[in-house]
Amino acid sequence: MVESDRRRLHEVALATDLYQMTMGASYHALEMDSTATFSLMVRKPPKNRSFMVVAGIQEVMDRLASLQFDQSVRGYLHSTGQIRPDFIEALRDFRFQGDVWAIPEGSIVFPNEPVLEVQAPILHAQLAETLAINAIHYAMAVATKASRCRIAAPDASLIDFGLRRTPGIEAGLTAARSAYLAGFDGTSNLLAGERYGIPVAGTVAHSFIESRPSEIDAFRVFRDTFPGPVTLLIDTYDTVRGAHHAVRVAKEIEENGNRVAAVRLDSGDLVELSFSVRKILDEAGLTDVRIIASGGLDEFELEQFTRVAAPIDAYGVGTQIGTAADSPILDMAYKLVEYENVGRLKLSTGKMSLVGPKQVWRRYGPDGFYERDLVSARDEPAPGDEWTPLLEPVMQAGEILKPETLQEGRERFNLELARLPDRLKVIEGEQPYEVQLSDVLRKRQETAIQEARKREGIDAQ
Amino acid sequence: MVESDRRRLHEVALATDLYQMTMGASYHALEMDSTATFSLMVRKPPKNRSFMVVAGIQEVMDRLASLQFDQSVRGYLHSTGQIRPDFIEALRDFRFQGDVWAIPEGSIVFPNEPVLEVQAPILHAQLAETLAINAIHYAMAVATKASRCRIAAPDASLIDFGLRRTPGIEAGLTAARSAYLAGFDGTSNLLAGERYGIPVAGTVAHSFIESRPSEIDAFRVFRDTFPGPVTLLIDTYDTVRGAHHAVRVAKEIEENGNRVAAVRLDSGDLVELSFSVRKILDEAGLTDVRIIASGGLDEFELEQFTRVAAPIDAYGVGTQIGTAADSPILDMAYKLVEYENVGRLKLSTGKMSLVGPKQVWRRYGPDGFYERDLVSARDEPAPGDEWTPLLEPVMQAGEILKPETLQEGRERFNLELARLPDRLKVIEGEQPYEVQLSDVLRKRQETAIQEARKREGIDAQ
Repeated sequence: MVESDRRRLHEVALATDLYQMTMGASYHALEMDSTATFSLMVRKPPKNRSFMVVAGIQEVMDRLASLQFDQSVRGYLHSTGQIRPDFIEALRDFRFQGDVWAIPEGSIVFPNEPVLEVQAPILHAQLAETLAINAIHYAMAVATKASRCRIAAPDASLIDFGLRRTPGIEAGLTAARSAYLAGFDGTSNLLAGERYGIPVAGTVAHSFIESRPSEIDAFRVFRDTFPGPVTLLIDTYDTVRGAHHAVRVAKEIEENGNRVAAVRLDSGDLVELSFSVRKILDEAGLTDVRIIASGGLDEFELEQFTRVAAPIDAYGVGTQIGTAADSPILDMAYKLVEYENVGRLKLSTGKMSLVGPKQVWRRYGPDGFYERDLVSARDEPAPGDEWTPLLEPVMQAGEILKPETLQEGRERFNLELARLPDRLKVIEGEQPYEVQLSDVLRKRQETAIQEARKREGIDAQ
Repeated sequence: MVESDRRRLHEVALATDLYQMTMGASYHALEMDSTATFSLMVRKPPKNRSFMVVAGIQEVMDRLASLQFDQSVRGYLHSTGQIRPDFIEALRDFRFQGDVWAIPEGSIVFPNEPVLEVQAPILHAQLAETLAINAIHYAMAVATKASRCRIAAPDASLIDFGLRRTPGIEAGLTAARSAYLAGFDGTSNLLAGERYGIPVAGTVAHSFIESRPSEIDAFRVFRDTFPGPVTLLIDTYDTVRGAHHAVRVAKEIEENGNRVAAVRLDSGDLVELSFSVRKILDEAGLTDVRIIASGGLDEFELEQFTRVAAPIDAYGVGTQIGTAADSPILDMAYKLVEYENVGRLKLSTGKMSLVGPKQVWRRYGPDGFYERDLVSARDEPAPGDEWTPLLEPVMQAGEILKPETLQEGRERFNLELARLPDRLKVIEGEQPYEVQLSDVLRKRQETAIQEARKREGIDAQ
């Protein structure tokens, strides 16, 4: 094994909450090794979200398949003094043995629909909790926000510029990947370009313009030293003058076959400026020079720009999607729903989950659009020919069944977005979508509640 | 070099925006290698933030010292087709050669104060942009929010429970570290415990309780299999009954010398429940059993709990700080402020930065509290004996001068928090604090603006 793998294994093993280990130690001491089912879902609908886009599933599978506890990990666990030594030593041979079902990446889902279910000996399923939520929560938050940008600006190129304000290098990778999954066209992030094959894009910063004696000099020398058609950043001093400078530089190079591909605006009133700049470019015959806008943009602004038909061809969107700023938290949980074939749940206020292994079904209308969804027990037959199951087996006995490429997830997203009813494609507020429970699941749920109350001696309320 | 270092170097080198490389290639082709100064600061005050806590500086230094471009990195750069090959090959021998000044971790700062300044050949200073903001932005957002929790609950223990909803494993590490820096007492995150020596804490999840035949059975077997005093999670079915169960289990083990250390509440009306549970425990003589509360908490709730003197001894705070949810974005930028000894700036709306290398001075009042700050040019003498400089040299010619332990930063934070005026310790809204500019800096700023306008032929406005 090479050292880089070893470091990854070390991090995956210890990137967990202490209580997973203390619980694990108790399961071990109590010889509890029956099969448990855990469900991962978003409970309450997040603000401004009428749907969510699934992401992070490949990362969960990779982490589960990598989960092992080498000597360096066990050494730290011993040093905490809070975990039984017999359990720590038993972890030496641990390999994840569970079955995992998931709704594949790029799919569109709704609150209370399980996105991932793990069935495994309870220790295995328990140890998956922190690493699964940690991999999926941010990936889904970003993918969902990216998809909203795609809806808000359906015809524009969208480039992820978020790396500088994502929470670290790993988050920058996840953000670029999630954005590309959910409708973006490229990223400025070179590491994401390398790791995932996402097209990379970029131009110059204001520092380059400012480091030169004048703006037009900066445009000329950048053009002369850049391989290929250039994008010029025109807002450093005065955007309208910058546009005229760009026209001059474009004309100067027309003869030798090179060209200005685009100009970028990064400040000011982008709508007004885009119209002015488009006019300047068009009047100079530069109708093929594109306009790129950036600067703290989000789907709310993109929607306004689209509404007034601002002549902007591409957007750089960064900070807002990399932090999922208007709705950074999904109420995502990973809950025990069955142990030893008995439905399990919490009775406490507002946090009840659906018992047992489940399936999510979607019914498409005759026009091809989503009609409604149904959550059923997994052992129920299909509710009818017109229903499609969403949860698929992705790991069996710890082996990954279907690794999927990012491109496949992206194609699925495009297909699903086309089938999402228009009324759910709102940017402000939340629109309801019907998610029913099957009669069987509803009955099992009631039974589990009654039985938990009976065991605890709590009267039905 | 071991492989794990190689992976880190690869990631640090490529975790950048494409445009840093295209600009770098142009600087190289143009033989521009004079010294540039870049300033990193937060421009506009973030929502609900009257101050910010510095964090992420050690990570920036580590990344800069690690910045190199091995064959695998250069291979990818070539494959993009957007970066001049001569520049890529010149990167083979690149090592960061800059001087870096920073305000040390745990310090309290305000908008428009430079937190970090880099002076280096322009290529070196340019390449630091993405990696510096990426390291500092999230670390400061979390540290600032953590410090607000500390203010809101001054006497409670605060434990970071955020790992599951932080944006990845690296972000979980950064969040735990930043929270501990700014007033937290521990973390549930084992990797952070190992990496940074932060005390780790944890109990059980609802799944453990639900996996047993009854709550009281779960309490008993957990107590019997946990090494040391236990914390019992009492809200799975009914919190008040859970408290009575905890009392029974505590009594059962009193004889053999073990004890229940605490009970945890994770749902429901935490204020009301904490009073009820405290009463049940006290009436049973269990006055030393602590109450821990958790469940989506933030500083706004903590402040309410403190105001009504809810008998809660410790809080688990996770998702809200790990996403800095109420204010996830700091308007942080890293801007060229001087090149070839000439002040540089952007003239565009609302995004002007302060030219030249700077110093930040703080004046403490006779009572020891902050009175006001002053931003000056770095070559100015001290404004007076009663002023303390905040920016310190931390790297010289690429060498790290003063690596600091997390503990040192934490002690600085505690000291500074004690000197922060009470009127700035508000949880809702923003309170102003005076940050002056020195006359010299103001004059240089005006000169730089006039000169930029003159160069561009823009009339003074």
